[in-house]
Amino acid sequence: MTELSDLGVLGLAVMGANLARNAARKGFGVALYNRHGERTDKLVEEFGHEGRFTATKELKDFVAALSKPRVIIIMVKAGKPVDDVIDDLVPLLEADDIIIDGGNSLFTDTNRRFDALKDKKLRFIGMGVSGGEEGALEGPSMMPGGEHDAYRRIEPMVTKMAAQVDGTPCAAYIGVGGAGHYVKMVHNGIEYADMQLITEAYDLFKTVYGLGAPDIADIFEQWKSSDLDSYLIDITTTVLRKQDEAAGKPLVDLIVDEAEQKGTGRWTARNALDLGVPLTGITEAVYARALSGQRKLRAEAEKILPHEAPAQMKPSQADIDAIREALYASKIIAYAQGFEQMTAASKEYGWDLKLGEVATIWRGGCIIRARFLDRIVEAYAKGGEIPNLVLQDYFRDAVLKAEVSWRKVVVLAVQHGVAIPAFSSSLSYYDGLRRSRGPANLLQGLRDFFGAHTYRRLDKDGSFHTRWGQDGKEEAIK
Amino acid sequence: MTELSDLGVLGLAVMGANLARNAARKGFGVALYNRHGERTDKLVEEFGHEGRFTATKELKDFVAALSKPRVIIIMVKAGKPVDDVIDDLVPLLEADDIIIDGGNSLFTDTNRRFDALKDKKLRFIGMGVSGGEEGALEGPSMMPGGEHDAYRRIEPMVTKMAAQVDGTPCAAYIGVGGAGHYVKMVHNGIEYADMQLITEAYDLFKTVYGLGAPDIADIFEQWKSSDLDSYLIDITTTVLRKQDEAAGKPLVDLIVDEAEQKGTGRWTARNALDLGVPLTGITEAVYARALSGQRKLRAEAEKILPHEAPAQMKPSQADIDAIREALYASKIIAYAQGFEQMTAASKEYGWDLKLGEVATIWRGGCIIRARFLDRIVEAYAKGGEIPNLVLQDYFRDAVLKAEVSWRKVVVLAVQHGVAIPAFSSSLSYYDGLRRSRGPANLLQGLRDFFGAHTYRRLDKDGSFHTRWGQDGKEEAIK
Repeated sequence: MTELSDLGVLGLAVMGANLARNAARKGFGVALYNRHGERTDKLVEEFGHEGRFTATKELKDFVAALSKPRVIIIMVKAGKPVDDVIDDLVPLLEADDIIIDGGNSLFTDTNRRFDALKDKKLRFIGMGVSGGEEGALEGPSMMPGGEHDAYRRIEPMVTKMAAQVDGTPCAAYIGVGGAGHYVKMVHNGIEYADMQLITEAYDLFKTVYGLGAPDIADIFEQWKSSDLDSYLIDITTTVLRKQDEAAGKPLVDLIVDEAEQKGTGRWTARNALDLGVPLTGITEAVYARALSGQRKLRAEAEKILPHEAPAQMKPSQADIDAIREALYASKIIAYAQGFEQMTAASKEYGWDLKLGEVATIWRGGCIIRARFLDRIVEAYAKGGEIPNLVLQDYFRDAVLKAEVSWRKVVVLAVQHGVAIPAFSSSLSYYDGLRRSRGPANLLQGLRDFFGAHTYRRLDKDGSFHTRWGQDGKEEAIK
Repeated sequence: MTELSDLGVLGLAVMGANLARNAARKGFGVALYNRHGERTDKLVEEFGHEGRFTATKELKDFVAALSKPRVIIIMVKAGKPVDDVIDDLVPLLEADDIIIDGGNSLFTDTNRRFDALKDKKLRFIGMGVSGGEEGALEGPSMMPGGEHDAYRRIEPMVTKMAAQVDGTPCAAYIGVGGAGHYVKMVHNGIEYADMQLITEAYDLFKTVYGLGAPDIADIFEQWKSSDLDSYLIDITTTVLRKQDEAAGKPLVDLIVDEAEQKGTGRWTARNALDLGVPLTGITEAVYARALSGQRKLRAEAEKILPHEAPAQMKPSQADIDAIREALYASKIIAYAQGFEQMTAASKEYGWDLKLGEVATIWRGGCIIRARFLDRIVEAYAKGGEIPNLVLQDYFRDAVLKAEVSWRKVVVLAVQHGVAIPAFSSSLSYYDGLRRSRGPANLLQGLRDFFGAHTYRRLDKDGSFHTRWGQDGKEEAIK
């Protein structure tokens, strides 16, 4: 009999296969199982030389191939397939065995599975894995949630498999139950905002300044040596540069402008609504994708609401810098909102999230990895509560420095009819945040008028109701 | 024994009491029940002369006082109290009796209760009631959902109790299950957007132009003779004019700028995310309330991010008109989005909503009643599918006419640092909607790069993936 494996990987589509190869390359013995055995064979055939694999065709053989307590990572589609696989595995496992769900599961599903498996004396870890195909193979960012004790068992594996930045692995224990999947969800939400902002900058260069994709690629290339430097900026240059040889055009100009979404952005926004956290940037990004998907409606609207194209003047370096600064300030807002959401979630769900660690493990491997995250790590390293990142020195300075440009760019877009939901909602949020006295006093007056919802006063304690429609007198409400 | 009552009202807080009085005034016999009997006594003592009331102290007497099939409207707090009351009632009722939930219940709860009571041969109606205290008494807008047959039984009562506009009652059958509560939820969502837009206009007058509350009231008064004429504009003038005699100041200046929310706005936004409808206006309004609630954070932010107050120039009539037009255009967007959401919900949940009728019954009684709704009624009266109201003649013309002002006002706010999340997100939505070619092609390229999510092409059918990070070749995905 062959040596027992350290890790079982169940589900060998591209993410699962690459995680398995990653583990094998790092010296771990990996048992493989896939519902359709051909995938397993193909993986061993192509990459068997990379490490110690044990291919299995029956679930019981898969389980038997693992050293105890067993560690099985399941990489199947979120939703029912995860429950099905767990149901199949449970009868074959023993107390203290660990199931890791490495997919993009909704954190409330993870909470539920965590509890159900706990009742069966099994240990469950919901682990966010970010980095796409390449990250899974070369080193992703990993966000495991569950019992700390179970994490200890898998720690040597995940910290080796994860990306490393300055000698620190991009994997850390997040918290109990669904905490890992929650943090991964917010990561994806931030990714939505990040991409939307890049898309809006691209649109400004294309529509207002009339630049072609290769010229815009040069600008993003330039930005890689700024604070904006990030994986997404980097791959934007590659995507914009790609030429479709057959058509003799930039490929991006041939791609349909309809963005799809798988759900994590929407979940993030839904959860922000539940928690009462103003998550404008990410939510506008989700809606922008929804609107992009209404391509037929947009084509009809263009006919009914015709507009002249902007004049298209060449951008000066100052124009380019202004857009970079607007993008940076808006990005700071999106992150500040996302971190505020995690702060609220940590309290609401009792997770005690270490947000400095979260920023640390996002520095490498994952889609939103960026130079910028070091600044977030630094902010949390100082200790103390951080109600909003914008109020921290570095971000405050960055936003104040960018502000003139930010306003200029939003004005430019508004005047030229370029949709910039993320740029402008971030600025509106900022303008709402930085004022101790907003206009919601009127709103409270209206609510009290029609619904007797009462209001509070600046000059007295307590709640009050004015009989607006009757005698106009005010009464104190006990 | 007294004559049997036509209607039972259970729950006699202000909304329930006023609905009971409304029914009695219209000639219906009304049985009354409240958990604490003093409320019942007080109602009969104060308003017993208004009609035929039967006060009861025991639930069985309450039920016994009703003619069959019984009609009971419950007016208790949404959530568990509704379930509790239903549980108490069920054993006392007979087949075909009707329970109406007249509170702001979540439509999915209503679906659940509808099904559960159907199993018990009881009929359940979830009825949205809008109009606040005054509407409940004088004639609200009523949105009943459930079985049509059950609606027939209550139709004579609700159509008489409802507000009447041009001889048409503001009550109509909406659809099965939770359809009535759903439509009421979207009504409330639109109300959030409407109020937020008014608040933003107020803020511009106050902050950019330095006007006091009475001067702003005069402007809103002026607007009552425009297309903007609505209940909310009307009560805004009253709220802004109200002087606090003791303080010698406008009351609104003494009200705390922290807006509360009870949930319907948030539910509307959550549901839009589920349906994939870009509901930017309402969602920004919900987030603006959330941000207003963070008063301590805002006070801290103002210290850390100090800004000079704008110079405050007196507004010309043209400036005032521009804000009116910007408000009107943004309002059109908010309604268009809300109606698009109802269209999507109607398909998704199989409700066959008659949206022209919905607009008709919103013309009176409810909080968002407005001249404007006649235009929506006209649009639906023409027949045919309406994917988006902005594309309908009247609204298209109104938006095109307002567009220059709209952009001018958003620019003004951005330059002066006034937060206008609803104005600006509506404009961004408009600019996204009216373009057949948006920038989401780049987004799809990025998604394909890191996640192999594939993209479609303008020039070929099918889905494609480029091996961006490897050999750069494109492959067709079957």
